[in-house]
Amino acid sequence: MSVGTLVLLRHGESTWNAENLFTGWVDVPLSEKGEREARRGGQLLREAGVLPEILHTSLMRRAIMTANLALDAADRHWIPVRRDWRLNERHYGALQGKNKKQTLEEFGEEQFMLWRRSYDTPPPPIEPGSEYSQDTDPRYAGLGPDLPLTECLLDVVKRMLPYWDEAIVPDLRTGKTVLVAAHGNSLRALVKHLDGISDEAIAGLNIPTGIPLRYDLDEDLKPLKPGGEYLDPEAAKDAIAAVANQGR
Amino acid sequence: MSVGTLVLLRHGESTWNAENLFTGWVDVPLSEKGEREARRGGQLLREAGVLPEILHTSLMRRAIMTANLALDAADRHWIPVRRDWRLNERHYGALQGKNKKQTLEEFGEEQFMLWRRSYDTPPPPIEPGSEYSQDTDPRYAGLGPDLPLTECLLDVVKRMLPYWDEAIVPDLRTGKTVLVAAHGNSLRALVKHLDGISDEAIAGLNIPTGIPLRYDLDEDLKPLKPGGEYLDPEAAKDAIAAVANQGR
Repeated sequence: MSVGTLVLLRHGESTWNAENLFTGWVDVPLSEKGEREARRGGQLLREAGVLPEILHTSLMRRAIMTANLALDAADRHWIPVRRDWRLNERHYGALQGKNKKQTLEEFGEEQFMLWRRSYDTPPPPIEPGSEYSQDTDPRYAGLGPDLPLTECLLDVVKRMLPYWDEAIVPDLRTGKTVLVAAHGNSLRALVKHLDGISDEAIAGLNIPTGIPLRYDLDEDLKPLKPGGEYLDPEAAKDAIAAVANQGR
Repeated sequence: MSVGTLVLLRHGESTWNAENLFTGWVDVPLSEKGEREARRGGQLLREAGVLPEILHTSLMRRAIMTANLALDAADRHWIPVRRDWRLNERHYGALQGKNKKQTLEEFGEEQFMLWRRSYDTPPPPIEPGSEYSQDTDPRYAGLGPDLPLTECLLDVVKRMLPYWDEAIVPDLRTGKTVLVAAHGNSLRALVKHLDGISDEAIAGLNIPTGIPLRYDLDEDLKPLKPGGEYLDPEAAKDAIAAVANQGR
């Protein structure tokens, strides 16, 4: 028997994705392409009859706007919303604001891939007070010493899972269809947990932007179908291949 | 001493405002002008340093999108959100979908103004199952017999005030700046309560679209300055005059 349905939606392209910059916690907007992706994601929900009953987002503009546009397109703009920093993208430390290609050239393939895909090695921490740090951002004022200065994927898992358990699981247990609109790495952390992916294998998993990924879960919150189902499987396949070539 | 700050924001022009149709609970989108008004409202918040810490909206697209666009422009897109049907526009009954000018010509000035401005005389109820009724709308499925088929302003006051007391006042009492993004008549109902306006005098009060109206409240939730303060007083004055001429 299935409890509720979980739908994951990675935000559409941001202006910094388009410029090939490390973004992390820098709160950049969607590009026009990203806005189109978000609306298309909403049309896919509508066409599939997958109608979210509650939304969970990060505190970041690109996930919030993606959810707003997608839900408007799906005629579900009116559902309840919860936002939490624990769904934010991975903090990219001192790499935030840097060009991916230049970083690759400057530090070499090995170091670059370690920062991008190592499970437990974070990039160098961001300097407090620097242009792309969040230490004066009012939305994080309550975090105190929990405010990250850099994160590896393991750090994201550690801060995301308590929110999963405390906030998202209770909604699923009431049988609801739950939409989580978030980021490449907070969603990878969640998928790692759901599908029981190893610390090594998660490095090879990419989630495409703007294509809803549906999981029906059993009573132990395990996926009935491992890996879930993209609402547009062909587009997901193409997009996953494209993401793997980022930074080249 | 002041408790929190209350900011009221009436949604920007909708496509049906632009066509001069009675809208009520029909969930029409903003016009392009309405989207511009919403962004401008957010800029006014930002320029005045009035930074909402929590948002309350209706369940209707035009209020939700106005809040989304305004908060994005004010860099406050990440604040918590609560939505409730009790902030919806007045249900316009059988008039929903009808042209205001034609209705004026068909029924005459006296009947027209009674429906538009009488405190306690609702229009005829909408026919269940008709094109512009809400009886199969999933967002209202939980309302049961509370689903209105028509409303006068008194009906709006009766359903809005419990939400004010139960949901908005507790936020104000914590000292928060609270944004309420809603509709001409749900906001008139709220202003009537705040400023102690009589059943007769409320007929003459119009709230312009897209211009934040700020109230600082004392410990008894009474306005420190009766009528509050529009963040753009000149534009508000012009807009109020224009609203008074609607349907002419």
